[in-house]
Amino acid sequence: MILMLICSKCGRKFEEKFILRCTCGGTLLVKRKYDSFAPRKFLDIRRYIDYLPVDEKFLPSLTPGITPISKISDEVYLKLDYLQPTGSFKDRGTYVTVAKIKEEGIDEVVIDSSGNAGLSLATYGMAEGIKVHVFLSYNAKPEKIARLNSVNARLHFVEGDRMRVHEEAVKFSERTGIPYASHWLNPYFLEGTKTIAFEIYEQIGIPRYIFVPVGSGTAFLGIWKGFKELLEMGEINKMPSLVAVQAEGYESLCKRSKSVNKLADGIAIPNPPRIEEMKVALRETSGFCISVGEEETLAGYHWLRRNGFFIEETSATALAGYWKAREKGLVKGSSLLLLTGSAKSF
Amino acid sequence: MILMLICSKCGRKFEEKFILRCTCGGTLLVKRKYDSFAPRKFLDIRRYIDYLPVDEKFLPSLTPGITPISKISDEVYLKLDYLQPTGSFKDRGTYVTVAKIKEEGIDEVVIDSSGNAGLSLATYGMAEGIKVHVFLSYNAKPEKIARLNSVNARLHFVEGDRMRVHEEAVKFSERTGIPYASHWLNPYFLEGTKTIAFEIYEQIGIPRYIFVPVGSGTAFLGIWKGFKELLEMGEINKMPSLVAVQAEGYESLCKRSKSVNKLADGIAIPNPPRIEEMKVALRETSGFCISVGEEETLAGYHWLRRNGFFIEETSATALAGYWKAREKGLVKGSSLLLLTGSAKSF
Repeated sequence: MILMLICSKCGRKFEEKFILRCTCGGTLLVKRKYDSFAPRKFLDIRRYIDYLPVDEKFLPSLTPGITPISKISDEVYLKLDYLQPTGSFKDRGTYVTVAKIKEEGIDEVVIDSSGNAGLSLATYGMAEGIKVHVFLSYNAKPEKIARLNSVNARLHFVEGDRMRVHEEAVKFSERTGIPYASHWLNPYFLEGTKTIAFEIYEQIGIPRYIFVPVGSGTAFLGIWKGFKELLEMGEINKMPSLVAVQAEGYESLCKRSKSVNKLADGIAIPNPPRIEEMKVALRETSGFCISVGEEETLAGYHWLRRNGFFIEETSATALAGYWKAREKGLVKGSSLLLLTGSAKSF
Repeated sequence: MILMLICSKCGRKFEEKFILRCTCGGTLLVKRKYDSFAPRKFLDIRRYIDYLPVDEKFLPSLTPGITPISKISDEVYLKLDYLQPTGSFKDRGTYVTVAKIKEEGIDEVVIDSSGNAGLSLATYGMAEGIKVHVFLSYNAKPEKIARLNSVNARLHFVEGDRMRVHEEAVKFSERTGIPYASHWLNPYFLEGTKTIAFEIYEQIGIPRYIFVPVGSGTAFLGIWKGFKELLEMGEINKMPSLVAVQAEGYESLCKRSKSVNKLADGIAIPNPPRIEEMKVALRETSGFCISVGEEETLAGYHWLRRNGFFIEETSATALAGYWKAREKGLVKGSSLLLLTGSAKSF
């Protein structure tokens, strides 16, 4: 097996270490070659351990599960990926990241996050003895801050928007030498989120479309990578079309709106570093981008809550985006919608 | 296949209808004969659909998942059964119950609950168009009440302890003719919770001990029934020893303490109706009962939270009970601890 990281921009190759960027500034992906798709017998994420670039002995004990899929109509499936230990799909990426961090002997890291990714990393860090600095905006939701506090995160508040928070986290890392473990850049994070694709495939096969809320693109790119690996292994012969659902005012793939959707704080990321890879994913899968406003998000949110899905507003954009795309005649066939984060209060 | 309900007290048999008690007052269990254990390929509770007494076409769309198991030491496993749609293992029982209710054309039910069971039934009821009356004590935790409100439960507050709440719910049902769907009595509820046993068996085989918080015994008896069915199918040839963990002051199987553990509100049930079946389960599995106080519960709670398990206090009794049993020299071999309910706030 070839073990390496490859730059998405210049193609340069690196050893599989905890590196976040190529010397050219490009983002990295793990590149391995797998012969065939043969999940293990585990009924949790370790089912796919043979496709993850980590040593079993460093795996955290807080194991992400296989999340259920609910069929809500003849053609619409919801994947309840918020039913993970810390309440979001991020645990998949964190699980692999923390295993890699432990392998490299790192015991202190920096992350910037509007909430879920920080909560996930801080929780796993607390459990595994890794100190986690979380950079976040003063505008972060109070319930997310309270929960970050409860898992001993070292909080650093930043004045300004999500991009400013990102810059301050990077500066802090450069000043102190504490590794920056951003899910935005970290190639190991996507190795975790690619298991979403493996699960979907085992659970319902290949849906025609997959709708994913997209900010930094960690779920979106993981799903793309997972299906691509299944294709390369010869397990499948077509990809589902990936649909990037974005929030108005924060679009990076769709045309930027003037109005601003303040409800979907988890995807309020106007300039994600992996934007070029996301464009490739859309092109390769004949997918598209769709943007939703506050009213649409709220309608999706209320529908989901009324039907027993205890999700946060950001997750509701997947349903809002699906409704909008269907109305526009963009959807012909089965659709799976990823529900990414759980409600933090009631 | 023989389809019937059987009275645990007098052995009388009934058709598989939505009946809660025998004419003699005894509690009922579903009795079916299965030839062999062959889970389906589903990666959620439907994996065991062939062992559930319901018609597939009535299954709710909110599908409980297979919950992960974390290994926290050489001999100790935690099953994260709080990672279900409404935040507790109760969804397993509710799922089967609601399917049966739908099959019988019932669209309004009554339940008494300190929180999780009521929340679970009310949520599934809201999603499936069933009106749910929940009887609860004025002492119920505010966050549980808020959540019950958010899922349109019809709340009926009762002055007095958990047993008084139960009596009032039964009276209301008798007065109005609205079926009483208590998880305490309902045999279909245990059919759902028995899938915990099937999962444990598929995930880690047969642990030497299984520690379960016990109030009304719905998780405990489900696990007992599940393993017993595996034994009857010839799939296994020994049972794990079941350990009932109870809260001081509310013991029904252990000797009643004078001190009262007010933290474990989910198991504060001094006179559960299925007590005789629980005694049989302890005897048949060479299990035992252990009771824990507030200080022990809190120690377990803090350990779990520090290690990333976002559970409510009641769940922590499983760990507290394990620690106490080990200290007393009662445990020799692997133990699985069931974490039953999630944190409702942070």
